[in-house]
This record gives sequence, structure tokens and C-alpha cells, in this order.
Amino acid sequence: MAINYPNGKKFSPANSKPKKQVKKDFSFSNRGKTLEDELNESNAYYLERGFAVIHKKPIPLQIVKVDYPSRSSAVIREAYFRTPSTTDYNGVWNGIYIDFEAKETRNKTSFPLKNIHEHQVRHMAQVIRQQGKAFLIIRFSSLDRYFVVPFSLLEDSWNRMIGGGRKSIELAEIEQAGIEVIPGMYPRIDYLPAFEQLYRNEESEER
Amino acid sequence: MAINYPNGKKFSPANSKPKKQVKKDFSFSNRGKTLEDELNESNAYYLERGFAVIHKKPIPLQIVKVDYPSRSSAVIREAYFRTPSTTDYNGVWNGIYIDFEAKETRNKTSFPLKNIHEHQVRHMAQVIRQQGKAFLIIRFSSLDRYFVVPFSLLEDSWNRMIGGGRKSIELAEIEQAGIEVIPGMYPRIDYLPAFEQLYRNEESEER
Repeated sequence: MAINYPNGKKFSPANSKPKKQVKKDFSFSNRGKTLEDELNESNAYYLERGFAVIHKKPIPLQIVKVDYPSRSSAVIREAYFRTPSTTDYNGVWNGIYIDFEAKETRNKTSFPLKNIHEHQVRHMAQVIRQQGKAFLIIRFSSLDRYFVVPFSLLEDSWNRMIGGGRKSIELAEIEQAGIEVIPGMYPRIDYLPAFEQLYRNEESEER
Repeated sequence: MAINYPNGKKFSPANSKPKKQVKKDFSFSNRGKTLEDELNESNAYYLERGFAVIHKKPIPLQIVKVDYPSRSSAVIREAYFRTPSTTDYNGVWNGIYIDFEAKETRNKTSFPLKNIHEHQVRHMAQVIRQQGKAFLIIRFSSLDRYFVVPFSLLEDSWNRMIGGGRKSIELAEIEQAGIEVIPGMYPRIDYLPAFEQLYRNEESEER
């Protein structure tokens, strides 16, 4: 993955004045990016600086037919998408196992639960039982707002839905229980400090 | 994934006498299985019992062409295998981030390092720096012997190779630094206790 932004070594403080302008450009050029692109950028940034090792998992496919046009190359000619049995992202930060799913919605007032599979909820519950940390990153794309949402809110909303309640999480509930990530310059979605805040809050509640 | 072996609830201690015979059959029927099949079975077993949440990552592919023969289905018609940038397995056990690569060799006296990619070594080093645990599971298939091998031995051997030394890890070195997993009944490769032993050894060395 190419990192276009100059790193600290090449970028002296004296050169840092036009940052605001750069920020604007970045923000604009990021408009067309998917949440996945943005998070890949964040993860590359974290990896490069030694902050965390978090990767997106490849898309699970069932491969049916492979051709070998030459000895060294293989071309997959028939394959199907499979339903993922876990979340898309996981890794390690500071000795903590991190596991999350990232979803975007164009909805402006709530996050529809149909975006999440039941086995993903089950997987995240399993992670929590193993003392890992599980959460959602939700992008309200029409509002350009991003949240790190603790699994507890997803779980409560899921159970509410199963009990016959609403099939979504209200934005107000997300604002209440989650931590908002304000888009920045680079990485645009710096979600790790928001996660850390959630994690510290949980820890202090447990004490 | 189907689990064919009855779980504890269905299997009363009174029925457990013919285990030795079952073991033999299992061991025989597992001969044709790949290491991946065996580890998937182990991981399903750990997951079912709440011992750990460890999954194999999907194979990374670059998708070039997708057909949509009907509204609800998609068929991938052209895709290519990509070199994985991480290891194949990761997850969480008891609050510990676990990350490993599993490889088999038909070699009887050493494990050739050409089985491992340089970026996988780099990835495992990054994991260790984030206080995760990284290791190899090596199967010597001609010997039917399995080892959990700490990253430290891989790293030392890798650096030795770069320095012009041998391009493999000797079996004797693996016996010395790793923990052997004796194939059992179910799961056939119960690698978690071996990892735990390695981990406890490391912890006591650090103290």
C-alpha cells in the first residue's frame, strides 16, 4: 500500500505551516474513498509507526476452478463469495487483542442492524469472553460522521431486535455509548485513540 | 464446519471405554488430512468449548472479473492468488493475542526456510513488539511429528541464513527450543497446551 504523505523525517516543523490547506485537500480527495480504504490507510499508518498491528482479513471465497496457463501462474476461473464467519479486522495493540467490523450507512438517524450478520455478533461475543476487545466502526456517510461503538451497545440492540424491538441502533444511542472520530488529515480516520478511550472507560467502570 | 465427534453432553463416561479403538481409527483416517484440515478441527474444538477464538484467514486473492448471472448471485470469473502479507492463523486465548503460521515438510532432518516468506517473519516480529505471541506449527509429515516452535528460533535461523549460514532449521534445534505435540484422538493436534507451556517458559525466563 502506497503512503503518499511524507513521514516525519522528511517533513520538518518549518514546512508544516500549509497543513490546513493540505488537510482540506485530503479531506476532499477522501470523499470518494470507501470506509475500507480509509481504515486500510489508518492500519498502514499504525503499522508503520509501531502503534498497532491490525489487518483487514481477505474476503472469503470458495474456489471451484483454477487454470494453470503456465507452470508458474494460476488463474481462478470460478469462485464464489462466502459469508464471513468472523469480523473483517483484527490484530494486536499493546498486548490487547482487537477485533472489529466496519460498516457504513447512508441513513441519517440510525444504523440498521441488517448490516451485521448474526454469526458476527456471536464471534464478537466469543472474543469478549476470551478477554479480547470487540467493537464496531460505523460511518454515517451522509453526515460524514464516524463512531467507534462498543460491542455492548450492538449486543443490547441485537437482543432488543430479537425481542421484537426496533431493527436498528439510533444515532443518539451511538452518540451516547460510542466515541466519535473526527476526520483528520493523516490518517483521516484515527480510530485507535477513540478505541483507547472506550477501553479506559470500561476499565475504570470495572474497578 | 461439521464436528463429527459427539460433545461432552452426549457422551457419558460409561460410553468412554472404547476410546482406544476410536483413537486408532481417527489416527488412521487423519493420515490423508492436510495440516490445515487438522488445525481447522483443533480451532473448531477450541471455539466450541470456549478455550480460544482462533481462525484461519481466507486466502488473499485479487479479483479481476465478476459475473452476475442473476440478481442475487455473483460468480468470480478471473482472480489471482496474492502473496499473503501476514500469517495464516490468529486469534485470542485468555486475553493473549496469538498469531502463527503452519507449515509441513517431507524433509526428515530439518525445516527449509524457503517455506516462510520474509514479510511473514517481519509480521511476526511486529506482533511480538505489540506484546502478542507469534510462533510456528511445523509438521514433519514423513515422521508424523508436530512442533510448536517459538518465533525466537525462526528469527535466529532467519538471521543466520541472511548472514550466509544454513537455509533451514535443524530438527534437533526444533526439538530443543520447541514443544512437541503428540497426535491424539480429538482434536488430533491439540496445540494449545504446547503453546501455553512455551508461553509459561518465556514468562518464567523474563522474571
